[in-house]
Amino acid sequence: MSFYGFSMAVQKVTLFTEQALNLHFGGQLDRIEVAYQTYGRLNADKSNAVLICHALTGDAEPYFEQEEGRKGWWQSFMGEGLALDTSRYFFICSNVLGGCKGSTGPSSPNPLSGKPYGSQFPHIVVQDMVRVQHELVAYLGIPRLQAVIGGSFGGMQATQWAVDYPDEVDNIVNLCSSLTFSAEAIGFNHVMRQAIVNDPNFNRGDYYAGEPPHRGLAIARMLGMLTYRTDIQLAKAFGRATKNEGAFWGDYFQVESYLSYQGEKFLERFDANSYLHLLRALDLYDAGLGYANLKSALARIKARYTLVAVTNDQLFKLVDLRKSRQLLEQSGVRLDYHEISSDYGHDAFLVDYDIFEAKIRDGLASAAVSES
Amino acid sequence: MSFYGFSMAVQKVTLFTEQALNLHFGGQLDRIEVAYQTYGRLNADKSNAVLICHALTGDAEPYFEQEEGRKGWWQSFMGEGLALDTSRYFFICSNVLGGCKGSTGPSSPNPLSGKPYGSQFPHIVVQDMVRVQHELVAYLGIPRLQAVIGGSFGGMQATQWAVDYPDEVDNIVNLCSSLTFSAEAIGFNHVMRQAIVNDPNFNRGDYYAGEPPHRGLAIARMLGMLTYRTDIQLAKAFGRATKNEGAFWGDYFQVESYLSYQGEKFLERFDANSYLHLLRALDLYDAGLGYANLKSALARIKARYTLVAVTNDQLFKLVDLRKSRQLLEQSGVRLDYHEISSDYGHDAFLVDYDIFEAKIRDGLASAAVSES
Repeated sequence: MSFYGFSMAVQKVTLFTEQALNLHFGGQLDRIEVAYQTYGRLNADKSNAVLICHALTGDAEPYFEQEEGRKGWWQSFMGEGLALDTSRYFFICSNVLGGCKGSTGPSSPNPLSGKPYGSQFPHIVVQDMVRVQHELVAYLGIPRLQAVIGGSFGGMQATQWAVDYPDEVDNIVNLCSSLTFSAEAIGFNHVMRQAIVNDPNFNRGDYYAGEPPHRGLAIARMLGMLTYRTDIQLAKAFGRATKNEGAFWGDYFQVESYLSYQGEKFLERFDANSYLHLLRALDLYDAGLGYANLKSALARIKARYTLVAVTNDQLFKLVDLRKSRQLLEQSGVRLDYHEISSDYGHDAFLVDYDIFEAKIRDGLASAAVSES
Repeated sequence: MSFYGFSMAVQKVTLFTEQALNLHFGGQLDRIEVAYQTYGRLNADKSNAVLICHALTGDAEPYFEQEEGRKGWWQSFMGEGLALDTSRYFFICSNVLGGCKGSTGPSSPNPLSGKPYGSQFPHIVVQDMVRVQHELVAYLGIPRLQAVIGGSFGGMQATQWAVDYPDEVDNIVNLCSSLTFSAEAIGFNHVMRQAIVNDPNFNRGDYYAGEPPHRGLAIARMLGMLTYRTDIQLAKAFGRATKNEGAFWGDYFQVESYLSYQGEKFLERFDANSYLHLLRALDLYDAGLGYANLKSALARIKARYTLVAVTNDQLFKLVDLRKSRQLLEQSGVRLDYHEISSDYGHDAFLVDYDIFEAKIRDGLASAAVSES
């Protein structure tokens, strides 16, 4: 139902068929399609389920079996005996509401017109995405999650699970994500959005019948990549090596060629409207939405909460992770807080398995149940 | 001769009238117009002249007299008794070759056609700009400079003065600029360039008869601003305050409104082609161009060299400033190196007078002559 590829093996379910989902910013969505995947086996007492929340441009498939020859976005973190141990846990991962990898989003058909939603897709926030995930977990017959884990945007979803469903999750693992998005990070998102919105093909979001705003989306992706990595990693990988000295305004340097490639590659797999909606949900994330204030929202959390900061993360800066630590502690949350260093910066949670292994393993396993 | 405003009081001279300037990347330019301004008085033995080199989007006028009611880009650093002491020095500042503030650049008329150069403007590097500055200093009858000072891109020009004219300058003051531009910084420039080049009005640079590529240029400027400041400063100035909650895809947050305003304001004063050329000159800067290697180029420096790093500069990162320090020291340069902290990050050299005052004062005054 979407223009953007996802594995044929992904599972699909239609939720909110009886009653529509009331969205936090107004409006409703019903008959929401959700693409999801599961890994491992649910045990007899249904106590080993772990929900994985993907980051901004992720999807429902963090892992593929070796014989499939494909790699998921958490391929190296997942498997028997690894931190995301498929012999121990039953993992569930779904594409977020608003995405373009099989779940209902702006490129899905609007039931009113039969054509893609485009500009008519409603505004969504993290809380709406979590509602849909909660409905999926209920559909799977799981009353309580051993853990919810996510990095970056996924970490915000994990946090919200603990706030909105305090009695249904024992452990939260939040990697490389603060409780709120900084002014600087909103600024980067603003530049990315303007690149898309100003693309002559954008047509206010109703571009599905014509050429998509590919130039704007590629520019946005290139900028995103720069905030996900670090100067150190780019210096090591590319330095000042040249690629094509004849391309004075193009990919003169290797690092330019790398960025251009990342921008182009992204076009095959992502929809500009989904990107816009998910960026804005990042900006707007506020765990206190619908509660008296942020602290009283955080005080609802009963789960053990593991927060891992990468010291040289250029998107979610250490100062904001430390503020989140303070807020969580002041709200009485049982917190395990860690700071680690990686040249990969923000992307470390996707590529630097060794430094996260113990943190994830402990974060998923910590026995909150015995204390509650 | 340019479309972009500069003060009526700026002085103009046409240089390279007898012999053309041979450019480092090939091609020539002759009858080069140079907009410049001077401040203070040249003393009798012409020993108190200081050349100021402007940064990427600066101009020939760092300062205006109070009665003019305008502010220059170094207004708060300059005046009687200040770090840039107009009662002590004779300051010269010129708009760089390739700029759009009165000196010959892509928006100037091409003598072959009478129309703006546009896509026909040749590739230029810092060394070409410094050649033009050198010609201006000669035209003013000054045999030797007490100092050359600049921040950011201006610091690269200052460095090159010491390399190319080692017997004509006593002191170099380089603020917030490393000897080379990092892969990450080239990456940001790449994204900015692509935003301009992909603007439907760009027309390969030949847009002067029609609408200029304003959307692309505004996006580039917004991104530039984010690299010039810091997360700390943006958090203090804007935090997560909202501006217009009705503008879901526009300036929802204050920081977005600030960036949009900076982008718009820039359009009144800058030409997209000049921006492209100067960005690329930043990327390409290599003090060793035309010499055996970088170290042998740096070994030519006889001037005392003051290098000031801002520890939280997000464009010219501390690691690169420290590498520059090492390179200069290994090349036998007499170096005064300082690290200072400012929430303003890279922009500190334009706005944070107090932390730079002593460094600039000492850097200009240090008596290299007595030792040579």
